[in-house]
Amino acid sequence: MTPKAIKAKENLSEFKVKVEDELEKIFKDEIEIAKEFTPYAVDYINELKNVTLAGGKRLRAAFVYYTYIMHGGNKLDEILRVCAAIELIHAFFLVEDDFMDEAETRRGYPTIHRTYEEMHEKNDYKKDSHHFGNTIAVNVGIIGDHMALNLVNNANFAPELIIKAMNRLNRQVITTGHGQIHDVLNEVRSELTEQDIINVLHWKTGIYTYDNPIHIGAILAGANDSELKDLSRYAVPGGVAFQIQDDILGSFGDESKTGKSASSDIKEGKQTLLTFKAYDEGTEEDRQVLDEVLGDMDATDEDIDSVREIFLRTGALEYSKAKALELVHEAKDALANNQQNGNWNQEGRDFLEGIADYMIDRDL
Amino acid sequence: MTPKAIKAKENLSEFKVKVEDELEKIFKDEIEIAKEFTPYAVDYINELKNVTLAGGKRLRAAFVYYTYIMHGGNKLDEILRVCAAIELIHAFFLVEDDFMDEAETRRGYPTIHRTYEEMHEKNDYKKDSHHFGNTIAVNVGIIGDHMALNLVNNANFAPELIIKAMNRLNRQVITTGHGQIHDVLNEVRSELTEQDIINVLHWKTGIYTYDNPIHIGAILAGANDSELKDLSRYAVPGGVAFQIQDDILGSFGDESKTGKSASSDIKEGKQTLLTFKAYDEGTEEDRQVLDEVLGDMDATDEDIDSVREIFLRTGALEYSKAKALELVHEAKDALANNQQNGNWNQEGRDFLEGIADYMIDRDL
Repeated sequence: MTPKAIKAKENLSEFKVKVEDELEKIFKDEIEIAKEFTPYAVDYINELKNVTLAGGKRLRAAFVYYTYIMHGGNKLDEILRVCAAIELIHAFFLVEDDFMDEAETRRGYPTIHRTYEEMHEKNDYKKDSHHFGNTIAVNVGIIGDHMALNLVNNANFAPELIIKAMNRLNRQVITTGHGQIHDVLNEVRSELTEQDIINVLHWKTGIYTYDNPIHIGAILAGANDSELKDLSRYAVPGGVAFQIQDDILGSFGDESKTGKSASSDIKEGKQTLLTFKAYDEGTEEDRQVLDEVLGDMDATDEDIDSVREIFLRTGALEYSKAKALELVHEAKDALANNQQNGNWNQEGRDFLEGIADYMIDRDL
Repeated sequence: MTPKAIKAKENLSEFKVKVEDELEKIFKDEIEIAKEFTPYAVDYINELKNVTLAGGKRLRAAFVYYTYIMHGGNKLDEILRVCAAIELIHAFFLVEDDFMDEAETRRGYPTIHRTYEEMHEKNDYKKDSHHFGNTIAVNVGIIGDHMALNLVNNANFAPELIIKAMNRLNRQVITTGHGQIHDVLNEVRSELTEQDIINVLHWKTGIYTYDNPIHIGAILAGANDSELKDLSRYAVPGGVAFQIQDDILGSFGDESKTGKSASSDIKEGKQTLLTFKAYDEGTEEDRQVLDEVLGDMDATDEDIDSVREIFLRTGALEYSKAKALELVHEAKDALANNQQNGNWNQEGRDFLEGIADYMIDRDL
């Protein structure tokens, strides 16, 4: 790793502690509010807290923070609250995602829909346990989303800046919604194009994980629309590269490091550059194996290994790695050539540069 | 009906046209944005448009409008946009509600989750059709929610007022989320108290349908916190009365007027004042009938009639009607005794008074 990548990694792990402390405070307040409802409400807000605090790199929050200081922002306590809000929106998406993927666990804990399915069974409640779990989870996610929106709305910045940041944030959730739907469509449709895959990488990660938090940090430090547009030339390719690497780790990662199963992407039938290229470059026999194993929740270890072997042999893995590297270069060039470069605070700028390298050179 | 109730009814039906025109414009713009995604996106935004425009009294939007003019507001084009946003948030909740209730139709049209379940079947897509429909619907709802939030965020009022209105709106969605979860809990749990029922009426209608839009209109016209608090003394009892009447129509209404089935509440096992009182005052045999029929999606017309007969014989219907009337008096007294009464614009004030009577004297 480059020295800036190492430094960015260190910054990220120090920052993680700060933003998680802030999230603890936020949930302490929200649990007080939940007490005005019922003990049930306290329970499910606690479940949301557990999902939010169970782990994660806090990359989205760090982008808000470092882009804010990069643009000369100095209200560090206030921006930390907005950083925490961005992680809480992420928790909302994780809860909805887990419902959509019918996931059993998230970072070792039962997912919210599973927790409430089990509660329903245990209490011998009326009607269907599975549907009950889903309805509770979807609503708990929605509560988390609006808790997060309100943290940004009520942060102590100039009202005009808040409105601009909220506009960005609402448009981002809409884009992510489109991305989620198209991700699901990719999983169920046949005959996808590479563009179908790239679109989802763009909307779900390019915009969501990189462009949005980077813009929010810049907006709250007073950046104008032209500056935001230039920042996207770093953010979008950087984000797509991040997701390609994430998808590689999703099938080839070390589970003890990534904290998630290295077979679940295959079992869910997640459509990635890996699956697309393998299908495109594979033999008729390879395609048969892919058709059978991708999306089969009961696939055996042997099945999973046969898919990994196809990813390797067809060059799909190599292609994905090369694509991620190319995009990281594009992102770093955009940063280096940005007209504002000389005006930026160095610590923020170095973080953005370092993170671009680190994110494709990581094992978790 | 009182003359003011008749006038409020007329105002409401004239206003409905205006707010639906505004919603048409909003969807025209959003469909242009959806085109930048894919034709799939255009389709599901159109589905959301259909749900939003398929009908409804537009009471929530009218509260925003008339409370705004009651407090002297005069940016009528701008407030209309906020009114439309409130109806769009309602469409979001309808989409989520239909998923939760596993409803087949909404005002005669297939619900979004059913439309996408059918699309999945027709295209012979991979994986489960039912779950596919649910995931699409939940995401389309989330998109509608954030479209609505952004309409309010970007409306042309003083930034400080927008932030105050957004804070109110986000807290309301959180309260409604709690309300939804407790409504579902009421349907699956045994041995409810009257308070369990009243809580849901309070959170899902008192706050959501009345208090929130009334506050938003007042906030954008510059009302202070003490004035908002006083308005709640009208809004909350008025809203609970509205819902009690809605639940009466849900089992005794004329389907050709209400536009919804008069058996679905019983089939879903919706817990209302009617069901609570019938259970509380009924014989052992009545309770057995209620236990069997409430929540039975396959209940026959005869089963439904036997439940209606219990609602009548036990006095549950009478009790509900009396409770609604008592709450309407409370709401109207709060309006009459409000310290600001003399300062209010008469047209707005008369609407609020008239609607209180009309809402418990309606057949749709």
